[in-house]
This record gives sequence, structure tokens and C-alpha cells, in this order.
Amino acid sequence: MAPETQDSAARVDGRTPDQLRPVTITRGWLDHAEGSVLVEFGKTRVLCAASFTAGVPRWRKGSGQGWVTAEYAMLPRATNTRSDRESVKGRIGGRTHEISRLVGRSLRAVIDTKALGENTIVLDCDVLQADGGTRTAAITGAYVALADAIENARSQGLVAANAQPLSGSVAAVSVGIVGGRPLLDLCYEEDVTAGTDMNVVMTGDGRYVEVQGTAEGEAFDRALLDGLLDLAAVGCTELTELQRAALAAGT
Amino acid sequence: MAPETQDSAARVDGRTPDQLRPVTITRGWLDHAEGSVLVEFGKTRVLCAASFTAGVPRWRKGSGQGWVTAEYAMLPRATNTRSDRESVKGRIGGRTHEISRLVGRSLRAVIDTKALGENTIVLDCDVLQADGGTRTAAITGAYVALADAIENARSQGLVAANAQPLSGSVAAVSVGIVGGRPLLDLCYEEDVTAGTDMNVVMTGDGRYVEVQGTAEGEAFDRALLDGLLDLAAVGCTELTELQRAALAAGT
Amino acid sequence: MAPETQDSAARVDGRTPDQLRPVTITRGWLDHAEGSVLVEFGKTRVLCAASFTAGVPRWRKGSGQGWVTAEYAMLPRATNTRSDRESVKGRIGGRTHEISRLVGRSLRAVIDTKALGENTIVLDCDVLQADGGTRTAAITGAYVALADAIENARSQGLVAANAQPLSGSVAAVSVGIVGGRPLLDLCYEEDVTAGTDMNVVMTGDGRYVEVQGTAEGEAFDRALLDGLLDLAAVGCTELTELQRAALAAGT
Amino acid sequence: MAPETQDSAARVDGRTPDQLRPVTITRGWLDHAEGSVLVEFGKTRVLCAASFTAGVPRWRKGSGQGWVTAEYAMLPRATNTRSDRESVKGRIGGRTHEISRLVGRSLRAVIDTKALGENTIVLDCDVLQADGGTRTAAITGAYVALADAIENARSQGLVAANAQPLSGSVAAVSVGIVGGRPLLDLCYEEDVTAGTDMNVVMTGDGRYVEVQGTAEGEAFDRALLDGLLDLAAVGCTELTELQRAALAAGT
Amino acid sequence: MAPETQDSAARVDGRTPDQLRPVTITRGWLDHAEGSVLVEFGKTRVLCAASFTAGVPRWRKGSGQGWVTAEYAMLPRATNTRSDRESVKGRIGGRTHEISRLVGRSLRAVIDTKALGENTIVLDCDVLQADGGTRTAAITGAYVALADAIENARSQGLVAANAQPLSGSVAAVSVGIVGGRPLLDLCYEEDVTAGTDMNVVMTGDGRYVEVQGTAEGEAFDRALLDGLLDLAAVGCTELTELQRAALAAGT
Amino acid sequence: MAPETQDSAARVDGRTPDQLRPVTITRGWLDHAEGSVLVEFGKTRVLCAASFTAGVPRWRKGSGQGWVTAEYAMLPRATNTRSDRESVKGRIGGRTHEISRLVGRSLRAVIDTKALGENTIVLDCDVLQADGGTRTAAITGAYVALADAIENARSQGLVAANAQPLSGSVAAVSVGIVGGRPLLDLCYEEDVTAGTDMNVVMTGDGRYVEVQGTAEGEAFDRALLDGLLDLAAVGCTELTELQRAALAAGT
Repeated sequence: MAPETQDSAARVDGRTPDQLRPVTITRGWLDHAEGSVLVEFGKTRVLCAASFTAGVPRWRKGSGQGWVTAEYAMLPRATNTRSDRESVKGRIGGRTHEISRLVGRSLRAVIDTKALGENTIVLDCDVLQADGGTRTAAITGAYVALADAIENARSQGLVAANAQPLSGSVAAVSVGIVGGRPLLDLCYEEDVTAGTDMNVVMTGDGRYVEVQGTAEGEAFDRALLDGLLDLAAVGCTELTELQRAALAAGT
Repeated sequence: MAPETQDSAARVDGRTPDQLRPVTITRGWLDHAEGSVLVEFGKTRVLCAASFTAGVPRWRKGSGQGWVTAEYAMLPRATNTRSDRESVKGRIGGRTHEISRLVGRSLRAVIDTKALGENTIVLDCDVLQADGGTRTAAITGAYVALADAIENARSQGLVAANAQPLSGSVAAVSVGIVGGRPLLDLCYEEDVTAGTDMNVVMTGDGRYVEVQGTAEGEAFDRALLDGLLDLAAVGCTELTELQRAALAAGT
Repeated sequence: MAPETQDSAARVDGRTPDQLRPVTITRGWLDHAEGSVLVEFGKTRVLCAASFTAGVPRWRKGSGQGWVTAEYAMLPRATNTRSDRESVKGRIGGRTHEISRLVGRSLRAVIDTKALGENTIVLDCDVLQADGGTRTAAITGAYVALADAIENARSQGLVAANAQPLSGSVAAVSVGIVGGRPLLDLCYEEDVTAGTDMNVVMTGDGRYVEVQGTAEGEAFDRALLDGLLDLAAVGCTELTELQRAALAAGT
Repeated sequence: MAPETQDSAARVDGRTPDQLRPVTITRGWLDHAEGSVLVEFGKTRVLCAASFTAGVPRWRKGSGQGWVTAEYAMLPRATNTRSDRESVKGRIGGRTHEISRLVGRSLRAVIDTKALGENTIVLDCDVLQADGGTRTAAITGAYVALADAIENARSQGLVAANAQPLSGSVAAVSVGIVGGRPLLDLCYEEDVTAGTDMNVVMTGDGRYVEVQGTAEGEAFDRALLDGLLDLAAVGCTELTELQRAALAAGT
Repeated sequence: MAPETQDSAARVDGRTPDQLRPVTITRGWLDHAEGSVLVEFGKTRVLCAASFTAGVPRWRKGSGQGWVTAEYAMLPRATNTRSDRESVKGRIGGRTHEISRLVGRSLRAVIDTKALGENTIVLDCDVLQADGGTRTAAITGAYVALADAIENARSQGLVAANAQPLSGSVAAVSVGIVGGRPLLDLCYEEDVTAGTDMNVVMTGDGRYVEVQGTAEGEAFDRALLDGLLDLAAVGCTELTELQRAALAAGT
Repeated sequence: MAPETQDSAARVDGRTPDQLRPVTITRGWLDHAEGSVLVEFGKTRVLCAASFTAGVPRWRKGSGQGWVTAEYAMLPRATNTRSDRESVKGRIGGRTHEISRLVGRSLRAVIDTKALGENTIVLDCDVLQADGGTRTAAITGAYVALADAIENARSQGLVAANAQPLSGSVAAVSVGIVGGRPLLDLCYEEDVTAGTDMNVVMTGDGRYVEVQGTAEGEAFDRALLDGLLDLAAVGCTELTELQRAALAAGT
């Protein structure tokens, strides 16, 4: 009898290589925000709040175009051991900066700033609990909060009835090479042992917005890179479907 | 027939003057923290995480005594309009500082640092949504998270089986003078119109840990001060009961 | 013969429980400031400078109302051992923030901002030497500097001849429970051993502006709280008298 | 005769789509540093200094392993219009943080920390003049400075004669989609009009260390992504050759 | 009759060109500090506190040598119009930095660090009121506070009975060219109109420790420079005498 | 035969006491800046970039006068051992502040701000390699970059054809007392052993703009001071000549 091959071995949480963790998207988690979503990728839990305000930053005034930006942060005890607060340290770390910029860019990829008019939407993505994939959960959830904020603004007459500020949808997922094989949506335990870690942001129609792959250990060859890109496409397609379903349901 | 007197007028949310908002205390809201509570006073929602670590800050080493401290913060969109992040501004505001210190002092009032041994517990109180009374909800919830963290540490052998690091319980509530009459547990709408605002922290056996009253408008006389103190005692007694019930239930 | 009871025991500096330290209020200590006072509560020495400027912060422009704010700080060697400068550390500590806010609120309680017109007064309270009660000395002295700055502005025509920007006077004193009994105006040596420490700010007509009591050790009951409030009223009445006398004298 | 197609159109500086700008690698540009390189990609000019010091950061002590890290920065007038200094602003921007981390990770990909022993090498990459591709020039130049610093340390006996701290070489290049076609090594003028911008870091043997692609405008499909990856491989191969030649020559 | 020449014209405050303002040196102005002086040069008023502590900064441990350093600062309302606090701004300005370094260097010029032993003296020079010449008043006063701190330490046995940590005395004065003629000890009104401003620090035996001359307007020639140096020598000699007298008197 | 006297002993690098190191002034080292110079005093290498922008800081608007300012900084590995970046530390050190201010003042001494019109020129002086005398090299090089930036602006019509914003030239050199004798233009090795260190900034016509002398060890007497001033005049005269020659040559 043939020995079990690596590919058929179960993952630490029993998933198949191309299986997402259970994903939930809870809209309207906050009472005040124009759009808000609690998104969960397994134990990873991110609160995404979309704040819509009339007006744009000074450098954009008079352009007729709106602005969308994002801030990502982690609560001190989101992780296994407590981290110091960046507000207490008095400076934002490189990782936080990097992810905030990534989330903002990803959402702007599906925004028609002309159609948005001179309005600003800030997406606050606060990680309440972290178990790998926080930045991809943040992007996936923030898109839904963004869509809600735009509809809310439309209902207030702040966005024209026939304007289409959203030119598409966007979702994100992490993939990585663990023990030599590509896996989808790494949990923390997989993430720390991954030789390569890649975050992929895709539009709902299957194009790339951002591809960020890093060899933590061994450099990787083109074949593995292709495998990771294939897997990410599978994940993003599924997440796009979940976003659509969430938005189709009532809040 | 006599006209309705002011005292019998309903509050903005229909409560009587000495009535708390609906309070819920959800233990074990996080998977990683040694103790964690999502506490709700009406729409006010605070996540309290207790992190237990062996060892104490340098200035306390060799003392045989433990340390308990707290950090309070608000998510940017906890409030009606978005606030800038203190991490982005690069400094912590006076209000945040003040409340963090208040929460820490309040919890230390019921801690026997000798019995705790050279261990540190940090209470992170993050306001996910604010509707008045965030600091009092934080103290009330943090006590429960603290109790859980101590039991967790005991089960790990980090606190002796027969040690009693908690010398009592602590709860807090806000009271204020609105339209001339004392009210218990102000919601945001009441808070902004209150002439005087007072936060009272009490032990489970009815003694005072902290009394902070401020005349926002008119200075207040001794009779009104006495009325506020009476009302606070009513509220803290009730909260103490809710804490006990929460701790008695399984997580 | 009965042994001396605790209540009749002299305090460390020989005072009776309800006795203030020698208080001096020296007006016009600085040549440039519109109002300035060197206030001394025993060895505690605070320099209070009131700076009057036409105009208000941006958020208040066009309101027809003025603004009063305060900043409290301590020289590095005001205390027994040198402290690092907050300017060198690059951030203001929680205690400094807290006291600055307290002083500002206390003075605003007796300001009619409409009568002040669109003018700003900043009160700088710098502790030159600290021996307990620095925040209460700061409030008591700052009130006199504030009154002088307003009269100075009136003489310059910056405040209308018949305007009454001051609606009353304000003074503050500390009280605490040391060795089980309430004492007035704690010096440093008493302060560090106090089980409870309370700062009370009162108007000249005997009403409360701020009550801040903290159990440093044991929680305190209502009877002790009442005793502290009584004592504070005695002290504030006396300080109000000293303020009046100082303002009545020529500079 | 057929009109000239887009693909055959010359680039702004006359290059073909798969052509690098003139690259020069000047070793030993500084007298003090253990390794130093002035690297030029066209008008982009980056000074890379490698500082070798015995010992490692505290968190790595006793591990027997060394550490390599990098800091990237730009002189204020490296660019067309002057930028404020980050030292004057008091904080490092997100972009700087991000690139410093990228350079460090890229170099660590070819370092055998065991063979390096408990020594630290810091790579300072300061952009003296910027014309696109500063981060990829920094990585390409820093690798050569790193190699020199290791040989310098070996000659001082700080690295064992037979140790191989470098497990390979690393080079980087930018690629992008401009006017619909993939181009290699974008200059600034091309970069600002690029719809997609990608930085690729590769080892000397043709494997990927880092792939970072961003759709600045339109999202891109898999075919374009493949085209960019092909182009990057061409560029990195050539840069690897130039690094080898530079290291083979005397300083 | 000849018209009054410029040289015979009285200065704004009636002094002759080579006349100091009234100088007072009040020792023991603070109760806690090991040495403290309130020094006044006319209306300029600087509080100098010398803090003596056993031990030295880490970089000096085991050297057998002590350390002397200084920090200069100005209260916000020391000047005619209020300045923002550097602690609130979160950074120390260039001028403050520069003067702190000057004061420290000047005092170290007369310190025998071997004789001081491994002890540290910090000189805090806080300007309570500014009317020109604050840095020179600070140096002149700080020397006296330093001498007192050393004698205090000797009386505590922290400095050996026969050790001579002070190798001489140091004093400082400003000189400047106003309306074409050299003047001694400029007050603020003179300072702002001075074409050249020079601060000179000299030892008690007439040698130079620091010479800092700056042409605010016109560059100056060697003859004027010589004139300024002569005048400074006159002033420092007189200040040295006043220091001696102050130290000779009882505290 | 008489032994060789100290005065005739060669300096560490073989120069005579009144001899400058080889000085090179390379204009147009950068492509973007309006004026740029790489100045070398021996191994000391400073990149001076002059950025000309229309408009002035807010406090100078409407004055009809321009503004010139400077920022000095050192690359981390300019020196023998690496220094931490000030941008990473989050604050600018005292030395950096001091030198930036010195460079700015020195250049403003030869600027006619009226003739410059409401334009701003920022001089960035970045030390690429340090071997003593970096601030004097910075001033000497920055003057040439400044002159080039003005001519560049004139050619763009931003400065009137007949305006003379430069009222003269400025150069700077260090002098010091090493082993008892005055030496010109100290290299690092001489600088660290110098008992007195002086930086002198002079106009092209031989007048003083700034004289900053500091006794690092022994205080110095008037005769030595005179000797240093003489030597500095020799050096500045020579540097002025080199500046003229550089400006006379084509870029």
C-alpha cells in the first residue's frame, strides 16, 4: 500500500490545501459608523469601520474627486502575548504603516473617485484577535463596510442616486509554502513555519490589484510562484462570493 | 390634578433616575488572553483583556509583590464622528492618560500585591463603541477579566492554590445632575447636557475607592453632592451583583 | 490619667488637623505677565502667570466667547530628588496632563466667557518647589493672577469697563486621611502616608467645582468622606479670605 | 508598409523594453566603512555602506547566529522638489519603513547567519539622487557592499577563514506596465505613468526572494503578470553579472 | 561747544558702556537642592539648582571620574509674549539645546572630574524672567550653585575632605555692538538692536573658556572684536568678584 | 645641534601649521538641485544642495524679503563607527541643531533679503564622510551652491536681472591648539587631541561673521586667542580664492 503522500496530509486544523477557514462577515456591528463589519477568518477577527465625511484633504480640494484611505492597527492583546501599544510608544511601527498603505491602495483600486465626488471615506481596520491573515481579512471586510458607507451616503443624498463610486469589488487572501506545498489562507501556526508567504489582492472579476510574495526562508522558483497564484485565485473567488452574499442579505 | 413633576419625567431612553442601562458581561470573548470580558452598558461596549505575565517591572523586582496596571483607549470610530488615532498623532491625550490611571488605581484597590507574588497583570480596556460611561464600564468589566486571569494563573500554578490576590471586588458607575436632578448611569445624550458629572468607584462592600465629581456648568452644593453619592451607591451595588453572577456562571 | 488620643496628637509640623500651612500670595512677581502670583503653601511654591491675548483658538472664533486654559509643570528640582524634564523626554506625563486639565476647568468655573469677549487667558502654573498640595496652591494662586490679568486688560480697554468676566472666586485645598483621621492641607510627608487623598475645589460662596478623592490604601466609608468634605470647606473658606485680602491690597 | 506598433516605439530615454539603464557599481567609495558602494542605475544614485560590528542585538545573544539589517533613506534634495527631512519631522514615513524592511529581508535571504557568527552588519542605503528604482538599486548595491564587508571581516579574523556567510547573491529590478506594455527598470518619468509597478528581488541562481506588484491604475491580469515576471528575470540576470564583475575587479 | 559724541550717550537704562546691570546672587533659594541660586542680572532672573547624585552615567562607569552636565530652559511667560512649552511641543528647540550644551561645557572647564569621583552633578538653569543675557546669568549663577553642591557633598562625606573638584571659578557675560559702539551686558532692548552679539565665558584668573560672537547684521572687523573682548574681560572680572563675595557670605 | 622644536614638527598628515588640506569644490554634482556642490576638505566630504523656491514662510509673507536657511546632517556611516540615524531616534541632536543654525546664519550674513525678493533658498548640507571640519566645509561649499542657485533663478527670471542678492562671499575654517601650538584646518585626529577648538566664519573681504572658540581642556589666554584668529584669517582668505576660482570655471 502506498504511503500517504505529503499532499494528502491534513493541515493543522484539518483543512485541505485549497480550503479557506470558516469566514463570517457581520454587517452593521457598530451603531455610529456609516459602514461597519466584523469579519472573521477562523479565529482572526477584524472590526472594519467606514467613516464617510463630506470634503476632502486640502491637497485634493477643488479636484471634484473624493478620497479613500485606511488605517490598520492591532489591539495589544489580539495576539498570544501582549504587545505594547503604538500610541504609548509614540510611533507607528513599520508593519502597521505597511499594512495601512496596502489596505488603502487595495480599496482605491475599485473606487471611481470622480463618482464619489469631494467626499472622504476612512476605513479603520482594528484587529481584535489575530490568528494569521489579518491584513487579508481587513481588506475583505473593509470592502463590505465601504460598500455600506457608500449606500448610506447615497440614502442621505451625499452621493448622487445614479453615481457608481464602486467600479468593482475587492478581496484578499494569503497563500504560502509550508513543508514544500502551497496552502491557502494560512492560520498563525502555519504562517510561522511557512517558507514563503504571499498576500494577493484581487478584484471580483479575477484581476490582480496587489501581489506581495516574500521568501522567509528558501527563495522560491517560478513553478511554486505559479502554484501560489493559482491557489490565491481560488480563495479570492470564494471570498468575492461571500461578500456578495453578505451585501445581498439585509443588515 | 397636579402637573407631572420633573422627577417623574422619563429620561431620554425611558429609564427612571436610579435605573442602570441594560448591562451585559461576556466572559472569555478572546481566545488568547488570560482573562477577557466584553462589557456593555447599553450601547457602550468595552473589550477588557487581562494579560498575566510572570515577573514585575524593574523597580519592583525582589519586593515579593506583584503589579497591576491598565491602559484605556478608544477605537477611532467608537464615537459619533471619527477621532484621530493617538498612535498616528504620536502622543496620548490627557483624557486617555487620566482614565488609564483611574482604571489602574481602581483595580489595585482590591489587589493584595503580596498574595499576587512577583507577577504582573495588565488590563487593556479598549472602547469599541462609546455612549457615555466608558470609564465606569471599563472598570466594571476589567474587574471580571482580572478575576478570570487570576484563576487562570492559579490553574497554571503561577499563583499559589491558597493565595487570595483579590481582597474584594470593585465596580464603577457615573452619576450626574441633568436638568437639576441627579441621574444614574448617564448615556452620551444625558452626559453632554449634565451640569455636573461624577464617576464613583466602589468596593463590593460599599466603600469608596474613587470619587471624581466635576461641575461642567454650575458649581453644586452639598445637598446635590449627597444625592449623587446616594445614587452611585445604588448603581454600584447592582453592578457588583451582576459581576458576581457573571463569575458564578461558567465561561 | 487617660493616654493622649490620636486626635489630639500634633501633626508632623505641629499643626492642628484643620489648620492650613502659612499661605502667602505675592502679586506682580513678574514684570511682563498681565497677571502673576507667587503662591506659597508652606514650602510649596508655585509661580502662576496669566497671559492675556486678544483672539481665541480657531474652534471658538466668531462665538463671541473667550477662552481660559492652564498649563501646570514642575521644575526638575522642585522635589527631593531630581526628575527628568518632560521636554527632554519628549512627552508630557499623565499626572501633568491631569493637573493642567484640572486647573483649567477650575478657573473656567468662575469665568463668564461671554463677558470676557473673544480673548484668551493662559494660566502657567510652574512649581518651583514642591511639598505637597501643588495643584491646590496652583488653583488658588492662579485665580488671583487671573483676576489681575482681567483688570489689566480692562485698563487697556481690551475688556469693557462694565463687563464682569469673573462670576465668582475659586480656591482649592487638599485633605486626606492620615493614621485614620482627616487632616487639612497635607504636606509631602503626610501625603505619602495618607490612606486617602482628596482635592477639593470650591467657589467663594461655598459650592463645589471639583471633588477628587482617591483611596491610596484602604477604601473609605461615607462617614470619612463626609469628614473630609467638611474639612475642605473650612480650608477653602480661609483661602478665599486670603485671596480677597491679597486682591484688596495694592500690588 | 505597416505603421510602427506600440511595442517597437522607443522609450522616453530611447531604451528597448527589456533594456536596463547604464549601471555602475563603484566599490570602496567611503574610507571608513567595512564595505561601501556607490551604485547608479542611470541618474539614480545610492550610497550603500556596510558596517560590520562584533556582537548582536540583545534578543539574539547566545544564539551563535549573526544579524543583518538595513536602513534606507533619501536626502531631501534627491528628488525634483525638496522633501522635508524625516529627522526634522521626528518620524519616519511609511514608505521609508517599508523599503528599509524590504532591503533587510532581501539581504538576509542570502545570509547564513550561523556562518556569520555573532556579528552584525548594518546596510545604510542613502539615496543621493532619485530617478526611479531607488529601492532596487539599493538592494543591488548593498549586496556588493555586504560581500566586501564580509571579506574585510574575514581579513581581520572576525569571520572564520573557511566560513561562507553568503549563500548566494541577490539583485533587484523594477518592472512595470506603461501604455499597456511591460518595461524593465523604469525611470521616474515612466514610473509615474505606469499602470502597474512591480519590484522583483531574485537570487543569482534565478529564484525569487520578493515579488511586489501593485496596480496603481487598472488591475492587471495573469498574462501581464507573467510578462512582468519574465522581464524581471532578464534584468536580474544582467545585474547579477554586473555584481560579479564588480566584485572580481580590484577595489 | 562740541556736540555730545556717541560714546558719551547714555544707554537705554542709563548705564555707561562698560557697566553691568545690578547683579544679585541669592544662595539657598530652594530647600531640597544640594546647591541653589537665584541669580539676577537686572530684570533677568534665573533659578540655578545643582543636584548631586552618587554614580555616573553608564558610559563613564568604572572610570573613577565624575560628570557635570546642565539643562537650560525658559518658563513660557519669562518673556514679553508667551512662548509655547517645549514639553507640550514634544521637542526641545535648537536654541535651548545650544545653551544647555554651552552651560555644561563652561562648568566642566573648572571641574577636576577625578577629584569629583564617580558622582554626577546636574545644573538646572530655569529662566523665570528674561531681559537679555539669560545664558550668561545662568553660567554665572550655576557656578555658585555648583560650588555649594560640592561643599554639601563634602559635608556628607560623598567627596573626600581634601579633594578639590573645582579647579577654578567661571563667569560669563554678553557684549555687543550697538549703534557702532561696544557695550557690556546687553539688556533685551539693546540685544535686539545689536549688530553683533558675543557671549564670553572666562575663568576667575582671566582666561577664556568660550568665545561666541555672531554678526547679526554687519560683519565686524578685528578692531571691534578686540574691543568686545576687552569689555568682556572687565565684566567677567567684576562677576568673579561678586561670586566670591556671595560664597564668602553665609547662606 | 639643537633638538627639533615643537613648532617645526610636521603635523600628522605632514602639513605645516598654516596649511589647509587639499580642497576641492565640485559644482553641479546633482541634476535636480538649483545649485549643488560636493566640497572636500581632505577626506571630509559634504554634499551641499541649494533648493530655490518661490515664496517665503508664512511669518515673512508680504515683507518683500526673501529667506535663506540651512539644514546640516551626517550620514550614519560618515564617521569611523556608525551612528544611529536621527530620523530613527525621532529627534535631532543638539550638535546637529547647533550646526544647522550656524550654517544658516553664516549664509544670511551675505544675503540681501530685499534683493532676493520673496523667495526661499534652503541649503542642505549632508556629510557623506567626516574627517574633522565638517561644519566649515559645509559653509564654504554651501556658499558656492547658493551662488549657483541664485544665478539659476536669475536665468529663470525669478530674480531680477540687475538684483544683487549676494552682498559678498563667506567661507569658514577651523583652527585649534594642539600640543600648545595653533594649527589651521584640523583633521579628525588633530581635533580630538585639541585643547581648544575654534570655528571662524569670515566674509571675502576679511571681516568676521562668526567666531566660536571652545576650550575643550585648558582655558586659553588672549595671546593664543589672537594666534588662532590670525591663522583663521589666512585659511579663509585661501578658501575665498578657491570659491572664486570654482565659480569662475564653467560647471
